[in-house]
Amino acid sequence: MGVVVPLEDDRGRGQNAVAQLQALVAKEMQAVNEFIRERMASDVPMVPELASHLINSGGKRLRPMLTIAASRLCGYNGTDHIKLAATVEFLHTATLLHDDVVDESDMRRGAKTARMLWGNQASVLVGDFLLGRAFKLMVETKSLRALEIIADAASVIAEGEVMQLAAAKDTGTTEDAYLRVIQAKTAALFAAATEIGAVISEKNGSEAAALESYGRNLGIAFQLVDDALDYGGRAASLGKNVGDDFREGKITLPVVLAFRRGNAEERAFWERTLQQGDRQEGDLEHAVDLMNKHAALEDTILRARHYGAIANDALAIFPDSPYRQALTDLVDFCINRNH
Amino acid sequence: MGVVVPLEDDRGRGQNAVAQLQALVAKEMQAVNEFIRERMASDVPMVPELASHLINSGGKRLRPMLTIAASRLCGYNGTDHIKLAATVEFLHTATLLHDDVVDESDMRRGAKTARMLWGNQASVLVGDFLLGRAFKLMVETKSLRALEIIADAASVIAEGEVMQLAAAKDTGTTEDAYLRVIQAKTAALFAAATEIGAVISEKNGSEAAALESYGRNLGIAFQLVDDALDYGGRAASLGKNVGDDFREGKITLPVVLAFRRGNAEERAFWERTLQQGDRQEGDLEHAVDLMNKHAALEDTILRARHYGAIANDALAIFPDSPYRQALTDLVDFCINRNH
Repeated sequence: MGVVVPLEDDRGRGQNAVAQLQALVAKEMQAVNEFIRERMASDVPMVPELASHLINSGGKRLRPMLTIAASRLCGYNGTDHIKLAATVEFLHTATLLHDDVVDESDMRRGAKTARMLWGNQASVLVGDFLLGRAFKLMVETKSLRALEIIADAASVIAEGEVMQLAAAKDTGTTEDAYLRVIQAKTAALFAAATEIGAVISEKNGSEAAALESYGRNLGIAFQLVDDALDYGGRAASLGKNVGDDFREGKITLPVVLAFRRGNAEERAFWERTLQQGDRQEGDLEHAVDLMNKHAALEDTILRARHYGAIANDALAIFPDSPYRQALTDLVDFCINRNH
Repeated sequence: MGVVVPLEDDRGRGQNAVAQLQALVAKEMQAVNEFIRERMASDVPMVPELASHLINSGGKRLRPMLTIAASRLCGYNGTDHIKLAATVEFLHTATLLHDDVVDESDMRRGAKTARMLWGNQASVLVGDFLLGRAFKLMVETKSLRALEIIADAASVIAEGEVMQLAAAKDTGTTEDAYLRVIQAKTAALFAAATEIGAVISEKNGSEAAALESYGRNLGIAFQLVDDALDYGGRAASLGKNVGDDFREGKITLPVVLAFRRGNAEERAFWERTLQQGDRQEGDLEHAVDLMNKHAALEDTILRARHYGAIANDALAIFPDSPYRQALTDLVDFCINRNH
């Protein structure tokens, strides 16, 4: 990616962090990947073809890693966390398939979206297939509480997307309203992914609450950084894959801040380009200039840092361990990443 | 509807049957409807608005009635069957919302489809919301076996729809291949709806198997009659709402039979209109003429009668009771209905 992000003191630690977490859960993630491959199988060839296009497209597998790490942080020694992690990845993949249809996206992770290759119809249906498989997988763990958490997350994610549909074109969206959207559409799955790690370990009290809070706040921070990166990150130069949100007319926190801090002429610009969808050559560059003028990207990252701090404090009740350290460092990674 | 269906000896009994079943489960279905209303709630107004448009559009609630009747046939005396019935209706509604997007349907049950009123995007997302709610509801019953059955059905339904996508335009589809499609996309939910009635009653042996078989075969019969009615039923005159499948280029059993029994010229007609999608004024009337010529609709109903007989024999292990009688009569209703 061509985004330029200035180096920060803690960036090195952040970049190492995800490698460290990956190393800690490497063996279990191999089992998760094996399991995913196995449970994607179907007699209808298009189903695994389409599903594996997205599942094997080089995502970081952040959410299933969180489930594994959270379980181990709670001292879990069984094997059901493998199934729960695969469930989380299936649910995530299903929502991405449906998102791409809803957002009419052409590209994801540098490749054509499934809907461009197999069509919207198959993307909707294979998403449904994966949702069914996700629940079936989870039933095998016999954890009703984990099932409840994931079922709830599935509804909340969909609610968040509908909220965003309704708010999508409204440049007057408040920061609070936007936070409600991303709590639902992004943070709910992070929170579920970490909370079920505690649940499967039969740590339903303060540990489950702590991991739920960690996941929720990490998810908010993650989404806010995503929003900033979509306009080029803190350094705000235009690189590859920049401007997707702008082209889709999405209202994200950088827009909310730039709109509110802008003058009448600037607000008219945001209304024309995002509310009315009338975008012309040079508009994206002007949008980035306005964001620089009002420090909208920098402050979006600052907000992310705030939620990251809450996430890390939530973990503080756990005794020190490599898992706690890796999860703490992961917050820095999510905030300082440039992709 | 303007479809003309000749009266048959057993038609009166069939029409009474659904009224009888409705009377038997009326009180419980009131509780189911109450529950559905309650669990559709969301802080995002578009979610219950869209969901209730379809849920309150005057469907027969056949599937949740099956769950109630199957539970009572197994002597169930608790209240969890209300939740399971609501689950089944939520899952059914979710698949209808997604189906209408996949099929690009404009009308359902005589009203505009949700996607015409709120858009494809919201229809996909509210479908996902209902799937999540369906699973959450079911978790409350604490029945892992029922959860497994419904999760499996959700995947199988989606697989069936993908199968149909792939086969949709192939006039050479065999009757066997078509049966595999409707076993998955229609009969799987009927089978799940009845089987969970036995499961919740802790009748997991021959009763569950019998009710699964009853539901599956009833579902196949139901879909085949639907296919025939879409071309006007046995009497095959063209009434209102006739020809949707033809206009959508769907291969159904009447087409499979008419294609196979037709001469070269007739096959070329089916290939042009359904495979190549080149449909002109008068083509639907010609299609119906060809079906009459080859008794394709009559024989589709005969096939339905075959599966209906299997369904009723599956029930024979249960002692005689008003529930068994109503379920048996329901098969006649499904086969002799004209809507």
